Amino acid sequence: MIVIMKAASSDSDIAHVMKILENQGLSGHLSRGVERTVIGVLGGVTPNGAPGSLGGLNPTLGETLEALPNVESVIRVSKPYKLASREFHPENTIVEVSAACVEGGVVRIGGKEVVMMAGPCTVESEKQLMTTAEAVRKQGAVILRGGAFKPSTSPYGFRGLGEEGLKLLAKARDEFGMAIITEVMTPTDVAMVSEYADILQIGTRNMQNYMLLDEVGRSNRPAVLKRGMSSTFEEWLLAAEYILSQGNRNVILCERGIRTFEKTTRNTMDISAFPLTKILSHLPIISDPSQGTGRRDLVGPMSLASVAAGADALLIEVHPNPDEALKDGAQSLTIEQFSTLMPQLHAVANAVGRTLITG
Amino acid sequence: MIVIMKAASSDSDIAHVMKILENQGLSGHLSRGVERTVIGVLGGVTPNGAPGSLGGLNPTLGETLEALPNVESVIRVSKPYKLASREFHPENTIVEVSAACVEGGVVRIGGKEVVMMAGPCTVESEKQLMTTAEAVRKQGAVILRGGAFKPSTSPYGFRGLGEEGLKLLAKARDEFGMAIITEVMTPTDVAMVSEYADILQIGTRNMQNYMLLDEVGRSNRPAVLKRGMSSTFEEWLLAAEYILSQGNRNVILCERGIRTFEKTTRNTMDISAFPLTKILSHLPIISDPSQGTGRRDLVGPMSLASVAAGADALLIEVHPNPDEALKDGAQSLTIEQFSTLMPQLHAVANAVGRTLITG
Amino acid sequence: MIVIMKAASSDSDIAHVMKILENQGLSGHLSRGVERTVIGVLGGVTPNGAPGSLGGLNPTLGETLEALPNVESVIRVSKPYKLASREFHPENTIVEVSAACVEGGVVRIGGKEVVMMAGPCTVESEKQLMTTAEAVRKQGAVILRGGAFKPSTSPYGFRGLGEEGLKLLAKARDEFGMAIITEVMTPTDVAMVSEYADILQIGTRNMQNYMLLDEVGRSNRPAVLKRGMSSTFEEWLLAAEYILSQGNRNVILCERGIRTFEKTTRNTMDISAFPLTKILSHLPIISDPSQGTGRRDLVGPMSLASVAAGADALLIEVHPNPDEALKDGAQSLTIEQFSTLMPQLHAVANAVGRTLITG
Amino acid sequence: MIVIMKAASSDSDIAHVMKILENQGLSGHLSRGVERTVIGVLGGVTPNGAPGSLGGLNPTLGETLEALPNVESVIRVSKPYKLASREFHPENTIVEVSAACVEGGVVRIGGKEVVMMAGPCTVESEKQLMTTAEAVRKQGAVILRGGAFKPSTSPYGFRGLGEEGLKLLAKARDEFGMAIITEVMTPTDVAMVSEYADILQIGTRNMQNYMLLDEVGRSNRPAVLKRGMSSTFEEWLLAAEYILSQGNRNVILCERGIRTFEKTTRNTMDISAFPLTKILSHLPIISDPSQGTGRRDLVGPMSLASVAAGADALLIEVHPNPDEALKDGAQSLTIEQFSTLMPQLHAVANAVGRTLITG
Repeated sequence: MIVIMKAASSDSDIAHVMKILENQGLSGHLSRGVERTVIGVLGGVTPNGAPGSLGGLNPTLGETLEALPNVESVIRVSKPYKLASREFHPENTIVEVSAACVEGGVVRIGGKEVVMMAGPCTVESEKQLMTTAEAVRKQGAVILRGGAFKPSTSPYGFRGLGEEGLKLLAKARDEFGMAIITEVMTPTDVAMVSEYADILQIGTRNMQNYMLLDEVGRSNRPAVLKRGMSSTFEEWLLAAEYILSQGNRNVILCERGIRTFEKTTRNTMDISAFPLTKILSHLPIISDPSQGTGRRDLVGPMSLASVAAGADALLIEVHPNPDEALKDGAQSLTIEQFSTLMPQLHAVANAVGRTLITG
Repeated sequence: MIVIMKAASSDSDIAHVMKILENQGLSGHLSRGVERTVIGVLGGVTPNGAPGSLGGLNPTLGETLEALPNVESVIRVSKPYKLASREFHPENTIVEVSAACVEGGVVRIGGKEVVMMAGPCTVESEKQLMTTAEAVRKQGAVILRGGAFKPSTSPYGFRGLGEEGLKLLAKARDEFGMAIITEVMTPTDVAMVSEYADILQIGTRNMQNYMLLDEVGRSNRPAVLKRGMSSTFEEWLLAAEYILSQGNRNVILCERGIRTFEKTTRNTMDISAFPLTKILSHLPIISDPSQGTGRRDLVGPMSLASVAAGADALLIEVHPNPDEALKDGAQSLTIEQFSTLMPQLHAVANAVGRTLITG
Repeated sequence: MIVIMKAASSDSDIAHVMKILENQGLSGHLSRGVERTVIGVLGGVTPNGAPGSLGGLNPTLGETLEALPNVESVIRVSKPYKLASREFHPENTIVEVSAACVEGGVVRIGGKEVVMMAGPCTVESEKQLMTTAEAVRKQGAVILRGGAFKPSTSPYGFRGLGEEGLKLLAKARDEFGMAIITEVMTPTDVAMVSEYADILQIGTRNMQNYMLLDEVGRSNRPAVLKRGMSSTFEEWLLAAEYILSQGNRNVILCERGIRTFEKTTRNTMDISAFPLTKILSHLPIISDPSQGTGRRDLVGPMSLASVAAGADALLIEVHPNPDEALKDGAQSLTIEQFSTLMPQLHAVANAVGRTLITG
Repeated sequence: MIVIMKAASSDSDIAHVMKILENQGLSGHLSRGVERTVIGVLGGVTPNGAPGSLGGLNPTLGETLEALPNVESVIRVSKPYKLASREFHPENTIVEVSAACVEGGVVRIGGKEVVMMAGPCTVESEKQLMTTAEAVRKQGAVILRGGAFKPSTSPYGFRGLGEEGLKLLAKARDEFGMAIITEVMTPTDVAMVSEYADILQIGTRNMQNYMLLDEVGRSNRPAVLKRGMSSTFEEWLLAAEYILSQGNRNVILCERGIRTFEKTTRNTMDISAFPLTKILSHLPIISDPSQGTGRRDLVGPMSLASVAAGADALLIEVHPNPDEALKDGAQSLTIEQFSTLMPQLHAVANAVGRTLITG
């Protein structure tokens, strides 16, 4: 940490900072420039950067120092996340999920292959789910998405079929050999959802639901962590760190659009998240262009853009009859549109040296 | 609901919309203009606007229609919230909380009086809490704030003393006669926190934690609902509607700053929230300038601005020694600063025709 | 236009609205629903939607009505731009620019071919410009970019070589046969810059510099209009409408990133702008991933994503020695990096059915 | 400046940074920590901080260094603005404007007195202007606002009466003794507008129109500089620095709302701008709640909040008949509403130890 003093700082201001550092078991290294005095803070992090080593260090120390009289600003030198950081874990993490439909029975997310996860926004009925699963499987999807527990902005909206929906998903898995991804919304549901799901999904509104993150961290299920709708990269990776630090290393990030001033699209997809999180982190990152745009007519182009920019998988909403969907019909592709998109995705994946795995 | 067709729409496009409406038990009223055809949607909401009346209506119908070919846009005519709306409940809601320190033993939030809620960000120790409680009570605060369960962006940060902290808060209540407000973070904690707290606080990260909202709605405790850091007024009032629709009518809104491009302050306080939510809703609204700015040197001016604009109460972080605080020291006032602020608040409250209640 | 009244509106409130419409030469068509009364506004726009037809209509009428007592909201049915709208001009506009280096001597922007515009952020010296121009031309760029007049956030920053820089650009055109694109910042410079430039660039800070837009509209040079850093699609297309309505139909849109809460990248590139403006408008749209990200390590992936999503051209900063650049070195590719990128772009362009033209 | 290297940086990475610094005439001071190496940059700014001293220093050097391999980040220690900074100019700047209607004939902005600037958004006719001027003067406004050159988002909107409007403003000044503030939009108009105006206004869209800032800097007229709709405090103060560095020291800042995700209000007023710019700068700062909210029903409360938070003046739109205004009628107060607001403003100004000057 580096503390930058204001031009007007006195010796006693500086001594005050040094005293606070000392109280925290740290020491300060003073460097006086023509215009500014700068204090380098030593101690508090061990060489291996293990989280445990932060034990004695108050994580809001920086803010406390910044509020002192005649402190101009405080600069953090180390990243606040370790387990999620590429710097301390240079190799890509590859998350493996069982799926009978692929050769070898295992789908790898985060490697050379690009993976298609598709299905309805919400599980509505056995017929709707089975029709969709069969169709998307036929086109090459290997993971089936479908919500049984659904966040709804309005209390009067449809909130999903609950465990009944999970059972339908399990049935689809048995029938089509696809792995299942579905959302879990509260800590007490983690165990139950894990009985049916191959991948747990944590939604954008729950990215900082810390008790949920803790519980998912204690489970042994791969987890997709969606970016909070106004979360910075640092906050997102710190949320991943919650799960990782509980022992679950199978975390997959998911860009699903951020909230901006622009309202023509539901969200603004931050496509730079794909190359950028690859620089900052070793975790796989996937794309949700359905939520990311909220508009069916943009899902195709944004899927192609995601793969071109480095996304490891796509999570796409497909509905056999979107006009009758109970939820988010506006952003669901028809089966026909999905079938048109797949060959385009193969072509773009190949153009950037990857392969779209289809089982 | 009003459906606006594109200039290029054909008779069959219009028929498609009419068919979908019919399937939902609604009817459409066609109006052809020179440039556009417009379809008014009839049915689906009863005259008294009770939420139950939305039963059969798909809340995402609008988005579904908007995604149809040659539909330009869909306009919602009714507000999606009812119980939180001023239109259906013209009188101000006044939330009453017991506090031995005031005359009559009851604090009223949402009426003519302005209320001071103050205390440490986080309960750290008995001494810290009691010192702060005594000092802020002496200056006129009638409600004591203090976090026992604390959300922390980093998994390595301090997450509060838990139930131990709640017991200290209860002790402070007994000693100083103040009511207690404290945060609850997960549904399974609602009953336990309610044993100790007079007011439950739902934090910004949990504004859309729907299972928590449901549970708080089933409790009988007044609840402060902080605005999500990137939530619109409509989303915020829909979150309030979750609590209200479960039967708990004692909901208090809290503006605590929103996330914008500006980083010199932690958040950007939306002071217009005070007069605006008074127009849209009947619920009380309070101000959290500590979280709203993240800077001690701005808490005073933003407290004055909040009261000038119509806030019903202030929620302010005070610490006997902020430089040593375990959390958010940078935004905590010292006891001396708090003592300086109180007479200024009295003056501004009086200037806008209100009174700062001090017990 | 549609006026939606509040539930509480009286007959006299409605009469007030009708009176105002009448004063503007319009008429209102009343429709009373169970919960709301809705007034459809007739008149004010001619069938062909020509801008002249808006003559008598006050463009802020909607806002005026919205501020009346018991008006809930006002909905605009027609788009405020006409000449820029796809609805009134269904075929793609293709902008032609002369460039000796391509077969036939003409580059077409907005058709099947994808075009590379590259060069230094700022013209610094003859040697720097010629070296860069030669290198990017060799790799297939057909348009040369380079700033002679540069906006600088600080008054103490480098503001470009001015006309001297333009002369160097003209020299590079003579030598390498590339067309020239360069920025114009103020109305009085338009004629002079047009002497040297094949394409005028209007920067993000000037997107709503209306006198500049007027003047560029009166010139006969193709113009690239960058999106304002916090401009909506509607504002952007209205700015294009300024130029179009003065008679210059050769307008090219350019997405260069918008301002959001996220600070890890300089801006957040809105990749959905490529497919979305193709839906809303007939104008070509190009991508500036250098400004869009501010980071050299993201320029390549975001270029690929732009082409995958439908961009008609790329505008990329290249510098022979970015570490010594006078401006924006951090986002400039080296010549080597540019050479690596070009074959990847060919592959992605082909994958989406287009061709990267290289002369 | 401080350069922070990545954990993985090698000696040659560090040598590369040192070399670049040397080429710029700077030197680096190396400090190796357990986890990071940090390089302090010396030189480049003289002790008095005069802008001239930045001469040889490349203002984008920081970004260039940040893009090098194994550089983690670069921290700027000095503020990029000097003349606008409180640190180098501790006393408040008070801008004086002549106005016959006040005792002594001079209005002071930035001192103990709070000043009311009011009038129509746009000068529409002699009758409209004179009626408004007379009414607001009677209530205590001492400066008359009114646009003669108006920015309009649409090319088909009303763009003002031009010089004819300026002449009407001059006439109002003669009649009522008020000073005049009006907008100037392009460099070539500065001299002409200065003939009629006592204060030049630079609008939000032109905050970074650098040639306009230069020209206003060369005039001798006080200037109100509105915050760009998505400008940070630093960018705003750098824009002020443009004017100041040309010799015009009479710069007044104006908060008029920023663009955020929230659309219920036209903009989100950043009320913290009042106390914050007082900390960062010595320049006066005023409030424009009309543009800041876009809603007449919020102008009153936001005016009170602005004064409570420290605004030096208010700039308010008033129209004798807002329903018939040619522009921004929705945010204009009626004369009656203005008359109701003034006594409330007196009370709040007094509550915070100031006086509303009324002549």
